[in-house]
Order: sequence, then C-alpha cells, then structure tokens
Amino acid sequence: MSAPRFKKDKEIIAEYESQVKEIRAQLVEQQKCLDQQTEMRVQLLQDLQDFFRKKAEIEMEYSRNLEKLAERFMAKTRSTKDHQQYKKDQNLLSPVNCWYLLLNQVRRESKDHATLSDIYLNNVIMRFMQISEDSTRLLKKSKEIAFQLQEDLMKVLNELYTVMKTYHMYHSESISAESKLKEAEKQEEKQIGRGDPVFSIRMEDKNPRRSSVKKIEKMKEKRQAKYSENKLKSIKARNEYLLTLEATNSSVFKYYIHDLSDLIDCCDLGYHASLNRALRTYLSAEYNLETSRHEGLDIIENAVDSLDPRSDRQRFMEMYPTAFCPPAKFEFQSHMGDEVCQISVQPPVNGELILRFQQLQSRLATLKIENEEIKKTSEATLTTIQDMVTIEDYDVSECFHHSRSTESVKSTVSETYLSKPSIAKRRANQQETEQFYFMKFREFLEGSNLISKLQAKHDLLKRTLGEGHRADYMTTRHPNGPLKTHTGTRRARPRSVFNVRLFNGNLESFIKPWTKELTRSTSGLWSSYPPCGGKLHSLHKFVWAPTSRNIPCIWIPAGSQ
Amino acid sequence: MSAPRFKKDKEIIAEYESQVKEIRAQLVEQQKCLDQQTEMRVQLLQDLQDFFRKKAEIEMEYSRNLEKLAERFMAKTRSTKDHQQYKKDQNLLSPVNCWYLLLNQVRRESKDHATLSDIYLNNVIMRFMQISEDSTRLLKKSKEIAFQLQEDLMKVLNELYTVMKTYHMYHSESISAESKLKEAEKQEEKQIGRGDPVFSIRMEDKNPRRSSVKKIEKMKEKRQAKYSENKLKSIKARNEYLLTLEATNSSVFKYYIHDLSDLIDCCDLGYHASLNRALRTYLSAEYNLETSRHEGLDIIENAVDSLDPRSDRQRFMEMYPTAFCPPAKFEFQSHMGDEVCQISVQPPVNGELILRFQQLQSRLATLKIENEEIKKTSEATLTTIQDMVTIEDYDVSECFHHSRSTESVKSTVSETYLSKPSIAKRRANQQETEQFYFMKFREFLEGSNLISKLQAKHDLLKRTLGEGHRADYMTTRHPNGPLKTHTGTRRARPRSVFNVRLFNGNLESFIKPWTKELTRSTSGLWSSYPPCGGKLHSLHKFVWAPTSRNIPCIWIPAGSQ
Repeated sequence: MSAPRFKKDKEIIAEYESQVKEIRAQLVEQQKCLDQQTEMRVQLLQDLQDFFRKKAEIEMEYSRNLEKLAERFMAKTRSTKDHQQYKKDQNLLSPVNCWYLLLNQVRRESKDHATLSDIYLNNVIMRFMQISEDSTRLLKKSKEIAFQLQEDLMKVLNELYTVMKTYHMYHSESISAESKLKEAEKQEEKQIGRGDPVFSIRMEDKNPRRSSVKKIEKMKEKRQAKYSENKLKSIKARNEYLLTLEATNSSVFKYYIHDLSDLIDCCDLGYHASLNRALRTYLSAEYNLETSRHEGLDIIENAVDSLDPRSDRQRFMEMYPTAFCPPAKFEFQSHMGDEVCQISVQPPVNGELILRFQQLQSRLATLKIENEEIKKTSEATLTTIQDMVTIEDYDVSECFHHSRSTESVKSTVSETYLSKPSIAKRRANQQETEQFYFMKFREFLEGSNLISKLQAKHDLLKRTLGEGHRADYMTTRHPNGPLKTHTGTRRARPRSVFNVRLFNGNLESFIKPWTKELTRSTSGLWSSYPPCGGKLHSLHKFVWAPTSRNIPCIWIPAGSQ
Repeated sequence: MSAPRFKKDKEIIAEYESQVKEIRAQLVEQQKCLDQQTEMRVQLLQDLQDFFRKKAEIEMEYSRNLEKLAERFMAKTRSTKDHQQYKKDQNLLSPVNCWYLLLNQVRRESKDHATLSDIYLNNVIMRFMQISEDSTRLLKKSKEIAFQLQEDLMKVLNELYTVMKTYHMYHSESISAESKLKEAEKQEEKQIGRGDPVFSIRMEDKNPRRSSVKKIEKMKEKRQAKYSENKLKSIKARNEYLLTLEATNSSVFKYYIHDLSDLIDCCDLGYHASLNRALRTYLSAEYNLETSRHEGLDIIENAVDSLDPRSDRQRFMEMYPTAFCPPAKFEFQSHMGDEVCQISVQPPVNGELILRFQQLQSRLATLKIENEEIKKTSEATLTTIQDMVTIEDYDVSECFHHSRSTESVKSTVSETYLSKPSIAKRRANQQETEQFYFMKFREFLEGSNLISKLQAKHDLLKRTLGEGHRADYMTTRHPNGPLKTHTGTRRARPRSVFNVRLFNGNLESFIKPWTKELTRSTSGLWSSYPPCGGKLHSLHKFVWAPTSRNIPCIWIPAGSQ
C-alpha cells in the first residue's frame, strides 16, 4: 500500500471551487434552457397560428369557388322545365336527380369548408394564442422559483465552504499543536537523555538543568492542553463538515433530481393539455367535415343506385301524354243500318273462311319459328351489350395510395384509367355489337308486326268459327246495344281528361275490376322478351281490352291479365 | 228503343280520317319527343362535363395552395435543429411531432385533391363525352326504326280505309239491289193487285197486262240475283273489314304499347348504366380521397393522444445534458492526512450530538406536519388547474349540421365556441388559481428544502449514533481504502462520457445490481407527490447512493429503491 499523498488546503479549496463553478455554470445554463424551451414553444405556436390563418384563407377561397360553381349551374337549371316540375312534385328523371344532388353536394362542401375556415380563425387560432400567452407567463413564474431555488442552493454550498474552511483551520491548528507538543516531548527526551534519564527528575532541582527540565515539562503540559483543545475543536469542525456535507449533497440531489423536474413541470403546466384541446378542435372540425361530406356522397350514391331506365321511361311518357297516349280503338262502323257487326260464317262464305283460317294457322307457325330464332339472337346480343355497359371499371382506389417516399404531387391517374387505345377498341367493339343488335331487332320487329296482324285475324276467325254462340261477345259493338249512347259517351269525354286519367297512375286501380274477364292480349310473345334486362316490360305495357256495355274501351296494363 | 240514325259513308270516312289524322300527329310528336329527350341528355352531359372541368380547376387550385402552404412551413422547419434531430433519430418532442404530421396531412390533402382533379379531367369527363356520343348515335338508329314502324302502321291504316270503303261500296250496292228488288216486288204486287190476283197469271197471255206481269217477274228475278250477288259481296267485304279492323287494332295496340316502349329502350340502351359508371367513378374518387384524409387525421389523432409532458421533459433534459446532468457528489476531503472521515462520537462530543439529534428529530416532526398541509393545498389547487386545462370543449359537430332549408353559406361557428366574455372569465379564473398554486408550491419547496437538509443531518446522526459498527459504510470514503485510486477513478472518467451514460437510458441496467442495498433517498416525501397527474415522477428521478468500494458514487433512479 503506497503512502497516500495528503491534500493541502489550497488544493482542496481549488477543487471545491472548480466544482461549485461548474454547478454555477449549470444553473445559468438551466435558466437558458427554460428560456429556450419557451421560445421554441412560442415559435411553434406562432407557426401554428400562421399555418391555420393561411389554411383558413385557402379553405375560404375553396369554399367560395365551390359556391360559385354550384350557383352557376343552379341558376341555369332553376329556369328549366325540369326544375319547375321538381319544385312541384319532386319527381325528376333519375339522371337529373343525380345532377341536382351533385350540385347540392358542392354547396354542402362549400358550406363545410367555410365552417372549417371559420373554426380555424375563431377557435383554433385563438387557442394557440392563449397557449402562447400561458407559456410566457408560466416561464416567468417558474424562473422566479428557479432563481430562488438556485440562490438557496448557493447558500448551502457557501455554508459547506465555510465549515470546510473551519475544519481545515482547526485541523491545521490541531496538527500544529500536536507537532508543538511532539517537539516539547522531543526536547524533554533530549534533556533526559543527556543525564541519567532515571535521575533526571531528581536532579532537576539540583542544577540549572533541573529548572530547564521543569520548564520543558511545563511547556509540554501547556502544549498538551492546547493540543487537546485544538483536537476537540478539530473533531467538532470535522463533525460539522461531515453533517453539512451530507446536507449539501442532499440539497444538490434534491435540486437536480426533483426540483429541476418540478420547475420544468411548472413551465409545462397545462401546455400539453391545452395543445391537445386546440388540436382536437381542429380534428373535430375535420372529422365533422368528413362526416358531412360522406353523408352527401351517400345521398348521391343512393341516387346513382336508383338510376332506372324503366321508371324514367314511364316518367318520360307521362311528360308527353299527347304523344304517347294510345288512341281510341278503331271500332266497327256499321254502314247504313247494317245490323250485322260480326263475321258472317253462314254458307257459302264459311268454307272459304275455314280454308283461310287453316292457311293463317300454318303461316303463323312458320313465322313464329323463324321469329323466335331472330329473337334469340337479338336477346343474346343485347345481353352482350348489357355486359359491356355494366363493366365495373370505376374503382380508382389505386390512385390514392400514399407511399411515404414519394414527396411530389405527381398523379398516376393517366395510367390507371384504361389506356386510350384500349378504350377505343372497346368502344369500337361495343358499337359493332350495337349495330348488329339493331339489325336483328329490326328484323324481329318486322316479323312480330306481321305475326301480330295475322294472329289477330287468326284469333278472330278461330273464335268466330269455333264459338259461334259467343260471337256477340267477340265484336266491339254490342249488336243490340244503344250505339249512339255508346260512342257518344266516349267521344263526349275530352281527350286530355282521358289522357290524364290514363297516365296519372290511377289507371290500374280504376280498371282492376274489369281486367280478369275482359283482357286479351297479343303480348304473349312480348312479355317474355326483355330488351333491358327483363325488367322493362312488367308494369308499363298496356293491353287493349273491350269492356262491357256503358264502359268505354280502355287500355289496361299487360301485367294484370 | 229509339230508332238508330244510320251513319252515311261520308260521315264515317270523315270520322276515320280525323282519327288517323290524330294518330299521324302523335307519330310526328313522338319523333319530336325522342329528339327532345336526347337533346336534354346531351345538354345534361355537357353540363356535367363543364361542371367537372370547372371543379377540376378548383380542386387543382386548392391542391396547389395546400402544397404551397405545406412547403412554406416545411422549408422553415427543415433548417431547424429539431428537424436535423428528427432525421437522425425520429425522436421529436410530442408537440413538434404533431406539427410535422399536420404539415404531412396538408401535403397528403394536396396530393389527393390533385389526384381528384386528374380523375375528373381524364376519366369522368371522358365518360360523359362518350355517353353523349352514344346517346346521339342511338337516337339516330332508333329513329330509323321508328320511321319504319310508323310507315308500316300507316300502311295498315290505309288498308283498313280501303277495306272499309269496299265494304261501304258493296253494302251500298247490296242495299241498292235490295231496294230495286223490293221495288220490283212492289210493282208485281201492284200489277197483281189491279186485277184479280187469282187470275192474274192466267190472264197474262190474254192481254197486254199479261206480258207486263211477266216482264216484272223477269226483272224481279234478275234483281233477286243481283241482290244475292251483292249481298254476298257485301258480307265478304264486311268480313274482310272486321278481320282488317282486328288486325289494325292489334297493330296500333302493339305499336303504342310495346313498340314505343321498345323504341325508347333503344334510345336508352346503356345510357343509365354508363351514367352510373361515370358517377361511380366520381364517387370512388371522392370516397378514396375521404379514406386517405381520414387515415391522415387518424395519424394526427394518435400523435395528439401521445402528447406527453413526461417524455417531453425527459427528452428536453437529454437534449441539454451539460445543463441537467447532476454534478458529482461532494465528497469528504480529508485534510492533511486526517485519517478519520466519519462523525466522531467519542466523549465529550457524544452528549452534544445526542442532544442535537433529538432537537433535529422534534424540529423535523413539526416541519413535516406543517409542510404536509401546504402540500395538500398545493395538490388540490393543481387538481383544479388540471380539471380546467383538460375540459372537453373541442367538439364542433354542431357547426356542421345541415338543414335543408338554409341555402346560404352562413356559418354558425362564432356562437358555438364559448363566447368571448365567458372565455375571458374562465381564463381569469385559471390564472388566479395558477397564481395561488405557484405561491403554495413555492412555500412547499422552501419547507421541503429545509426538511431535506435537516433530514440528511438527522439520518447521518441516527446512523452514526445508533449503528457505530456500520460507520465505515455510512461515509463516502472507505477509511482504509485506496484514496488515490478511488478518487482517481472517478476523476479520470471524462464528464461527457459520464453524462452520456447517465442519460442514454442504460443507466438503470448498469446500476441495478447495486440499488437494493445501497440506495437511500430523501425522496420519500416526493414520490407521493404528483405535480402532473401522478405520472411524472415515476422513472425520471434519480437518487443519490453511496456505493461500495471501487464503484464510484452514482445517481440511481428513485423508482428502484
């Protein structure tokens, strides 16, 4: 074990002072850090305010542009017949309905972005301003506390310095007293060593050396007392030093580990919570905008789901009753009091009629087979077209994928919608199919028109030849009925009234009681033919039915036969 | 039964012609309606194109503005120390993190609105253009078919006219023949009635009257034959009329009820389906924009949830290690080879120390009670402030309620955020509470600092007086230990390395083995004090602990004691 080198006062003091100097520098640094932290906060809050002020401007401009857009088209549509109609009965063609909802959605978006802008300006920014004020005020207050804590800490360090110096002083004195005591003891030993040490005391009184010995002894005693006194002072000073050291370390520890954290907490007081609320206000606004937008889009989606050619066709025909209302049926006009108003089957014409009936029958059979073939081709072609126009090519999700790496606002849309050559090809194909469909459909119509005519004759002949007893039933005019009253009734009713009754949707209920026994139709062929997905011919085709006396002839829906 | 008035040819023909004229007018009207429908469609599709073109412009402008906004603040932050740090370790203060994500969100919105604009221009508008083309082409083709169907219908009506005229002609002839026959019969009767009807035949040859009778009879026979012939012709003509009437009605019926619908369907072919797809493309874009926006907002919301004063404080202190790293503990500096480095308890100082210990004990008891009271008040005040700053006043849903009636873009925000007087009052209240809290907290700090110092002395005395045998353990320097090596080791370690080790998070694991037996702390008072919701002092406070020989004194976390 090597002998330890003793530290001198100056060395210890220098070390201590350097340690305190470091701490003092740290305390200054800490104040600076608190300042800096608040400066950064105030700057951040200023940036946030500037950001939201500018974003509020952008949102307001966006809102105004959307409003102008909506207004421009709203003004245009408001004057249209459709809009007048819409205001009256809210019943629009389904594409027009979509268009109105699209404009509504833009208005809604406009309003929502204006609201967003308003919330930014009057709520979010205000909050950031207040947080900034709070931060500055809290910093000031926290620094006051920090200043006092640091002052107290310095007092503690000064106290340690003082007690350490005291310890050094008393310890030095104690050492010095000890060395003086040791010197006295050495002198005494030397004195004794000169004569016989055993007799030295005895010889004390005998010679001059005796008084010197006594003097030394007295000095030694005095020095012993001095040493003891200093030793005690030194012990007390060291004890005080040790206690103060413990208290100082405890204070330093408390300041660095607890008080500094507490000071930072004082600066933070409510900062995160208030920032949280400010940002949540922003989020609430944005989420609500989104919800509103979503609701609007859902309304449009519903309208798109309801795009329906069937009901649009009905509405279209109802819009123009004079064009589409079926005319009155042609009735048998008895000539100059001719009282027969049905097919005469008495000889000699009956043979001829039977022959004619047979010819019609076989002709119809051939025609129907031929036309059925054409119908099948036509239907298959239509199905192909349906498949073409209902292809689900509208998903643009992939355009909205965000990768963290791409920083540029470069769109990838152009590639995502089918490339132009591909579209051109698809469209050419579609038109070709369409062309073929129209050709086949025209053929089919020609065939079915001929069949319709021949079938009518055939059926009439069949009924007349086969069921002579019901002949009166099969003609339009009751042979013994009051002809004048009959036609007069129909003619007396103004056409327009008739049309309105026919097209206002109450027709069905009006004629229901008559439908079962009275309906006959040539539409057997047609009801199985679906030109638009099989849905179109269900409700909106009318068949012609003769009615019993006093009720005018009327069209009734094919669906009810 | 009143005698029916017989209709004359002219009357019937006039009625028929007027009926056909009406139908012909309807046919023209129908063509017009189809034209008009397509015109309206083309106009609607043009409006939709214009609308989306304009909206694409608005979206692009909005996108550019957002991009500029983001770029402006991005550029500003890119140069900051925070950003450099962020790029390095992605570890940001939680409010700065929110700020960065806010800028990211704006960039995201910018990009999404640019994509939206692109989809409008390159996809949606293109679709509307194609639908418009299709509608025009289909109208042309449908009208061709309509034209032919109408021609055919007119042919049928002409045929009916012809057979009706034929019936009239033959019936007239039949009537005329009948009347001639009747006239002959009348003449015959008259001739017979002039003479004795019984002898009239016999007298035929005898006188001129006889030849006249014969002549009349011959005429009558001739007229009878003529009548029969005409009657048959008339019956056939009527039969033909009735059959043609049936066929005509069937054709008219078929045209109005089926063919017209089919024609409209031909015009519609794919229109609704294509419009559906175009609008769905728009919806897909809008919904995707919404989803992307929502994802971005969720990221921000997460960051707002993570706003955390505790970890921010830690990060803040780690950012400035030179300011916040606790200094080395003050150690007992032995003066000039003083070999005693602990409290001396030998007489005569022991009595004094015992007295001092007792005084400290009673003083501490009083101080602690007093300070506990202050602490409670301070804590309660803090809780009040916490409640104030965490009030959930950020829901702005009500600003986004849409009523169908309000057409104006008037915002209702101003009223929804608490009115300004109310805010001022709330803030004044908050600041007053804050003021009181700081006062109480300062009092508490003063008290606890004094307690800390006295407690340290008290504890040291207690250990020294009570457990003299463990005295060597209680002082910082081992009495027989190699002083030079000891201090040398600590001093040799550069401060910065020490700091890094202390603050880089590995400290805890490094000192774990020493914590159990070595730790003592004055933080008992503190660990139960939660200045910020009770979370703040758990991990981030260090306590000072003397270690056994060869291990330098070190700070260890309070949590592990």
